[in-house]
Amino acid sequence: MATVAVIGAGAVGSYYGARLAQAGHDVRFLLRRDYDAVAARGLRIESHHGDFTLERPAIARDAAAIGPVDWVLCGLKTTALDDAAALIRPCLTPETRVLAIMNGLGVEESLAGSLGTGRVFGGLAFTCINRGEPGVIHHIEYGQVGIAHLGDDPAELDRALALWQDATVEITRQPSLLRARWEKLCWNVPFNGLTVAAGGVDTEVIVTDPALRAEARALMEEVVAAGNADLAAAGAAGAAERIDGEAVISRMFELTDVMGPYRPSTLIDYLEGRAIEVDAIFAEPARRARDLGVPTPRMEMLTALLARLDPARTPPPQATT
Amino acid sequence: MATVAVIGAGAVGSYYGARLAQAGHDVRFLLRRDYDAVAARGLRIESHHGDFTLERPAIARDAAAIGPVDWVLCGLKTTALDDAAALIRPCLTPETRVLAIMNGLGVEESLAGSLGTGRVFGGLAFTCINRGEPGVIHHIEYGQVGIAHLGDDPAELDRALALWQDATVEITRQPSLLRARWEKLCWNVPFNGLTVAAGGVDTEVIVTDPALRAEARALMEEVVAAGNADLAAAGAAGAAERIDGEAVISRMFELTDVMGPYRPSTLIDYLEGRAIEVDAIFAEPARRARDLGVPTPRMEMLTALLARLDPARTPPPQATT
Repeated sequence: MATVAVIGAGAVGSYYGARLAQAGHDVRFLLRRDYDAVAARGLRIESHHGDFTLERPAIARDAAAIGPVDWVLCGLKTTALDDAAALIRPCLTPETRVLAIMNGLGVEESLAGSLGTGRVFGGLAFTCINRGEPGVIHHIEYGQVGIAHLGDDPAELDRALALWQDATVEITRQPSLLRARWEKLCWNVPFNGLTVAAGGVDTEVIVTDPALRAEARALMEEVVAAGNADLAAAGAAGAAERIDGEAVISRMFELTDVMGPYRPSTLIDYLEGRAIEVDAIFAEPARRARDLGVPTPRMEMLTALLARLDPARTPPPQATT
Repeated sequence: MATVAVIGAGAVGSYYGARLAQAGHDVRFLLRRDYDAVAARGLRIESHHGDFTLERPAIARDAAAIGPVDWVLCGLKTTALDDAAALIRPCLTPETRVLAIMNGLGVEESLAGSLGTGRVFGGLAFTCINRGEPGVIHHIEYGQVGIAHLGDDPAELDRALALWQDATVEITRQPSLLRARWEKLCWNVPFNGLTVAAGGVDTEVIVTDPALRAEARALMEEVVAAGNADLAAAGAAGAAERIDGEAVISRMFELTDVMGPYRPSTLIDYLEGRAIEVDAIFAEPARRARDLGVPTPRMEMLTALLARLDPARTPPPQATT
């Protein structure tokens, strides 16, 4: 049994933390909005893999009350990445590992800059999951998590996979964090981005509108090209270490075509007036592509539009005429 | 003195029609929304080139009451292009000429298909003009009109320029309609498009946000490339007959940088819930570029987003879960 701190207990953090608790681990949740509801009624998971409730989970309002643990599961939005190290640090021993189940590119590198490289892992969740009323998580579809180590160390990966061994979560071993992150972006860039930029529509609109579907595919092709250039620059030697673009793109559409009218996290943030994850999901991949000389005109336009549409953006000075 | 029918007396049609009336022509306005206001109080022009009022202009609620004229000035939105021929036809004699002061590509060809090729002209207005209260037009900035003939016939161009000889309007002679249309798109595609897609912002936001300004420039470069390919395909022989991309792009930014917080017509239509001119300004140029093998990824993405953002779009069937 491991001790686990869930830092950033939104929909994703709460769900996967609850699955670890269900598997017998000692899981402690850092809560803000939902603290009172979970204290009163527990944490309720309504999942297509089976509903359950943690009746009396260990919860805290600040990380110091959680104390040192074996694993930190970080489910913060990347818009809170600057605060992540301060929230995680009270939970660390020299042996503590940190698994970031977050979106975008550069998250693990950023955490490693504050917390140390060897201990950081990336969790790539492909799942449809939303918060319901306080203390309730709706897990609608999918749920698999790819796990990678920032240093791509196989022994460290063994350690991470052991944590999830008894949990009701489909885990895949990802030998390359960089490849896994770019493959995940093949979904997040088009679907998190276009659902917002097209005015606040769900994924079903994107895959059933022929022009938007074509844009989604073209965005994926840009992500694949940029990702493979990034992998090559990082020393990925053969085709087996690169992204198989056509296979990944086909799989993304197959998964999304049966997803129904799903609202990605960025769309929910946008519709609810919260900061959207522009930097990690859009700007950083576009910046890397530019540095590598890979043209990504659609990603650049989407990034520029989303940066302006971001509810967190401070309005610039305006002429008053 | 010529007889002139203004069909589509929105801001642009009313303004230029009033300038022709001021110059002594017999101008008759087809009005709908503003009929009662203009009947009661005349047509008021508040212009940076001088305010004036047509106290008792000739107005009609239907084109049959206007009858045959020498010139039709068509200021309809391209979203009403399918109705244009029926509105114009009651005003035609075999000698009547039609000047379409409209945005986008393919407008003159469409009118010529119904009305005959030799009589159709394009008017390319570079102007900041809005409707005020009923019967009042605000002319804020610029105002020049390029005039071209669908057949690029110099004698026909002479005839058109003669009409405007005494009017307080800066007219430029455009020997190539196709080139003039593509040059105009260098402004309309980025500014009419991005102001809507970025969430409903004015042109000042586009030119002062570095990322959006870069997108505007990149869109202009796509328009220039597509336009020059279209001109080449149409037989334009030398450099003098092509678009000088850098010169046009620099001029567009110079003009827009001092425009202040201007709202292009497409933005106003969008904000007021009316159909936006997706086909003529965006989809048709993108389609021609595709047919010519010119990559225009940004125009394609913008077109797909605007088609979805168009208030006139019938919402597609949605799953109800």
